[in-house]
Amino acid sequence: MNQANSKENLVIIKISGNIIDDEARLESFLRELSAVPGHKILVHGGGVMATQMAKELGIGQKMIEGRRITDKDTLKIVTMVYAGYINKKIVALLQANKSNALGLTGADGNCIKAHKRINANLDYGFVGDVDEVNAELFNQLLCDNILPVIAPITHNGEGQLLNTNADTMAQEIARSLSDYYNVQLVYTFEKLGVLLNADDESTVITHLPYSYYQQLKSKGLIFAGMIPKLDNAFAALNSGVQKITIGSADHLTSVLNGKSGTTILKDE
Amino acid sequence: MNQANSKENLVIIKISGNIIDDEARLESFLRELSAVPGHKILVHGGGVMATQMAKELGIGQKMIEGRRITDKDTLKIVTMVYAGYINKKIVALLQANKSNALGLTGADGNCIKAHKRINANLDYGFVGDVDEVNAELFNQLLCDNILPVIAPITHNGEGQLLNTNADTMAQEIARSLSDYYNVQLVYTFEKLGVLLNADDESTVITHLPYSYYQQLKSKGLIFAGMIPKLDNAFAALNSGVQKITIGSADHLTSVLNGKSGTTILKDE
Repeated sequence: MNQANSKENLVIIKISGNIIDDEARLESFLRELSAVPGHKILVHGGGVMATQMAKELGIGQKMIEGRRITDKDTLKIVTMVYAGYINKKIVALLQANKSNALGLTGADGNCIKAHKRINANLDYGFVGDVDEVNAELFNQLLCDNILPVIAPITHNGEGQLLNTNADTMAQEIARSLSDYYNVQLVYTFEKLGVLLNADDESTVITHLPYSYYQQLKSKGLIFAGMIPKLDNAFAALNSGVQKITIGSADHLTSVLNGKSGTTILKDE
Repeated sequence: MNQANSKENLVIIKISGNIIDDEARLESFLRELSAVPGHKILVHGGGVMATQMAKELGIGQKMIEGRRITDKDTLKIVTMVYAGYINKKIVALLQANKSNALGLTGADGNCIKAHKRINANLDYGFVGDVDEVNAELFNQLLCDNILPVIAPITHNGEGQLLNTNADTMAQEIARSLSDYYNVQLVYTFEKLGVLLNADDESTVITHLPYSYYQQLKSKGLIFAGMIPKLDNAFAALNSGVQKITIGSADHLTSVLNGKSGTTILKDE
């Protein structure tokens, strides 16, 4: 802990798709983010626009277990929507709030390298699993007071772009940079936190230690869509990330301060 | 000139749309670019894909005097195609060739700020004219051996992205960085150089001093599409850029060495 205390703080924030699709909420979120002092990295998801765009272009979308199967045409669309439209919109809005944002995919500056997912039962197509985060580049950008804004696209180093889960990217960046910073990882989304009853926003679990999570999961009390996010969160916590919170994108400051949302904890 | 000689060299290369649309030629161009030693910046144009995409999505395109009128929907499309698809494709291919490419629009790191074009006779829509190049950011990236890859999109600092002419962006970057480097600006395209007869590739003008250009222009002997490019080139030459060449993207090395293409010259 002494070593950790000598490090600077870094907040890594993941914003999910639903907020991105809502212009007013996105602008308000980015204003709040700009007011957060210190080093920050923003990782954004995709939202529904890629699906809409594919539909308008007559490209069929295959989803298996909530995961998009990324064929060549779908990769083109997600690259355009995530790395083009969404990423640049966020960067321009952050710049308007005097945050020196700079958008990146994993290919840019080779900042996140991945490999095409290998799965004997299912070909996910051009989906990437992260191999390596270029901590040196992130360090350099953060030192220059740049706010990296990461789109959920990586590359394999051989010229192939890959569609990659934004939660995982946030977690891998957090892990990798926890050698250099006290990292707080914040997953923001449309709910107030991890809920005991998915339909009741008043049932936020404020503190979620691993053993309690396992208990709830085994009883089927964790909403299926939250499981990968939480598994990711606990994995990050076990890899040196200092603090993890999950909460509403509409209340970023209070989520950061632990006054709102769910704090993920190791067991005592 | 003594001061200039103490500076490092920087090559700024503009690649136009037609090559980008041809996968094999683009790959070969990027391989050749990767082999060029020293500091480099690549600026790319748009190509036909934005027009195709707009057509497929049923968005009408207005062109006036060869310029796209950029309404809200068109801005969305060019942002997706230029800053998303094309920019990331180029970055991933350069990375595969061991060039540490990093893609940027003008909004990223506030690297190129512009204003919405003001024209009493014609509303160009969301089209930007460059105000300022962030030389400090480019210097920093070049020092870190990064190859910036610039998409033809800027921002106004107030959250608005703007569609911007790639030739002009290349020229403005060249101008701004000529205080720090010996800058060679290279416009590559599908022809062998500036031609005396647009239909005959054997009529390349190898050296084009300003007075000769004025002469040819007044006689109507310069192809209309070349005029903005050449006006840009002479403006850059008068603003400190050391050397400007125009030639084929298929012969990058010989264009760089002056063995192919047209060299733009001040009058003696």
